[in-house]
Amino acid sequence: MDKITVIGSGLIGSSWAIAFANAGYRVHIYDRDESSFANSERYIRQELASLTSNADEVIQRITYTALLAEALEDAGYVQESIFETLEAKQDIFSAMDALVGEDVILASSSSSIPCSAFSEALGHRAQCLIAHPVNPPHLIPLVEMVPAPWTNASVTEKATLLMNDIGQTPVVVNKEIEGFILNRLQGALLNEAWWLYQEGYASVEVIDKCVRDGLSHRWSFMGPFQTISHNAPGGLVDYAERFRGFNFEIAKSRANPTPWDLDAAKNAAAEVEAIESKMGLDDAVTWRNDMLRSFKQWKSDSSNS
Amino acid sequence: MDKITVIGSGLIGSSWAIAFANAGYRVHIYDRDESSFANSERYIRQELASLTSNADEVIQRITYTALLAEALEDAGYVQESIFETLEAKQDIFSAMDALVGEDVILASSSSSIPCSAFSEALGHRAQCLIAHPVNPPHLIPLVEMVPAPWTNASVTEKATLLMNDIGQTPVVVNKEIEGFILNRLQGALLNEAWWLYQEGYASVEVIDKCVRDGLSHRWSFMGPFQTISHNAPGGLVDYAERFRGFNFEIAKSRANPTPWDLDAAKNAAAEVEAIESKMGLDDAVTWRNDMLRSFKQWKSDSSNS
Repeated sequence: MDKITVIGSGLIGSSWAIAFANAGYRVHIYDRDESSFANSERYIRQELASLTSNADEVIQRITYTALLAEALEDAGYVQESIFETLEAKQDIFSAMDALVGEDVILASSSSSIPCSAFSEALGHRAQCLIAHPVNPPHLIPLVEMVPAPWTNASVTEKATLLMNDIGQTPVVVNKEIEGFILNRLQGALLNEAWWLYQEGYASVEVIDKCVRDGLSHRWSFMGPFQTISHNAPGGLVDYAERFRGFNFEIAKSRANPTPWDLDAAKNAAAEVEAIESKMGLDDAVTWRNDMLRSFKQWKSDSSNS
Repeated sequence: MDKITVIGSGLIGSSWAIAFANAGYRVHIYDRDESSFANSERYIRQELASLTSNADEVIQRITYTALLAEALEDAGYVQESIFETLEAKQDIFSAMDALVGEDVILASSSSSIPCSAFSEALGHRAQCLIAHPVNPPHLIPLVEMVPAPWTNASVTEKATLLMNDIGQTPVVVNKEIEGFILNRLQGALLNEAWWLYQEGYASVEVIDKCVRDGLSHRWSFMGPFQTISHNAPGGLVDYAERFRGFNFEIAKSRANPTPWDLDAAKNAAAEVEAIESKMGLDDAVTWRNDMLRSFKQWKSDSSNS
């Protein structure tokens, strides 16, 4: 499996192309809109320059096409990364289904729509699964592998091995659910954050600092379960006995949820802009990617020490 | 305000003593149980050895007493860090109220009980507030400052300045709520994590990796609001418009919560133990504190670069 096809040349598709090409794979990027290729190539060049001293060599492995059949020819693994609506996923997977053979794996970067929602009617449905990355995948290792009920077990296994091979950290989710694991965890925290902000308990900056300068210090190397097992003398069971009452109160207090208020979103957006301009940064995405690269290096150094 | 009193010589109290003494303050630790002093001193010596080359000098600033009146004499700031039950907080705050003058600040490390629940009837209630740390405070900077409705504004201000002075990152919460901000955010994520685990969607290791190797990469330097503002082309408002439907579905799916199942806690505890022993570490707390120290150093280096 030395040829990878990336469907969609946006930020996620381009980031995937970097991850695959930097690990030695040939990458064919498909987009029906040829005018997007220049932006994609610019982003890939810029990011590769910070990742490797062989940027010129790596970029030779990446080619573009606006022809789906050409993109899929000889591909062993396809990473679909287009706009996230059910209809868009159904259309592209039907189109691919008509063009591919038995040996290719068709993975989707879908962040919340389960694979069964767009693969059920396909002839090649046993070759389909979700490989959901965290944005941007060339800088954040986790990938959620979520098979549909009809996905062949060997497809999930091979796709997981490929993710390991390119240096990602794949995790296999046992059964489908909207949002999978990562975005449900983030969503639960966001829903509480949004409510606390809307109700005036704290500013965006205070809420963000509680995560950035508080919770993240433990979560950067321990997950939530391992963290709480350190927060009661008797470990996780002791923690559960002490704090499940408190956490049940939190859950009950959110039993009548309302959607996020869009006026609150406007105010919150202004507060985020104030935080970002306080840093004096022209380009917040460049800063973010620099920080992600530095953090990834810290994790790599500290886990080897 | 050069003398600090720490009430309670457990892990949180001892960690606070390290933070204050290492910043140059004299610290008087009170505990009614003198037999706990040896453990506290051992922990403080061990941690100071990793924090400073002046450990012998710093530890000279810390003294112990089992007499509350002696502990409070000349104190400018009190950091109460005893067992967390409402009755225990009421008892110790009543006892302190009878002994102190007008100038001392009485702060509680309470992680969820609001200050008004145990300070309403006190003569010195205007001097009371919450200063909730993240465990352990000498290695994690965030402190939530939560005044009661009757807390004097200058008390909140002085306590916040003191936290800045010792190198913590204080945030002021606008109004009281059980669990304040940090533990409500953690609790919302934990409730979802617990449900996903109990229902068999993923293992403890998979859930922990989703945070450790996924969400934490962004949250280590951006909070949740700043993070999502980077995850839609049009920023935070665009993100809200695209994803509030999905997040509302998550919220609605948890509208009939049940308490954490204690049998699930036993299984989860076994999975955490397997993760920790896989690391081959004898002492998980030592490892955790080493990682926290390293992470704090990374944050300090990367924010100065």
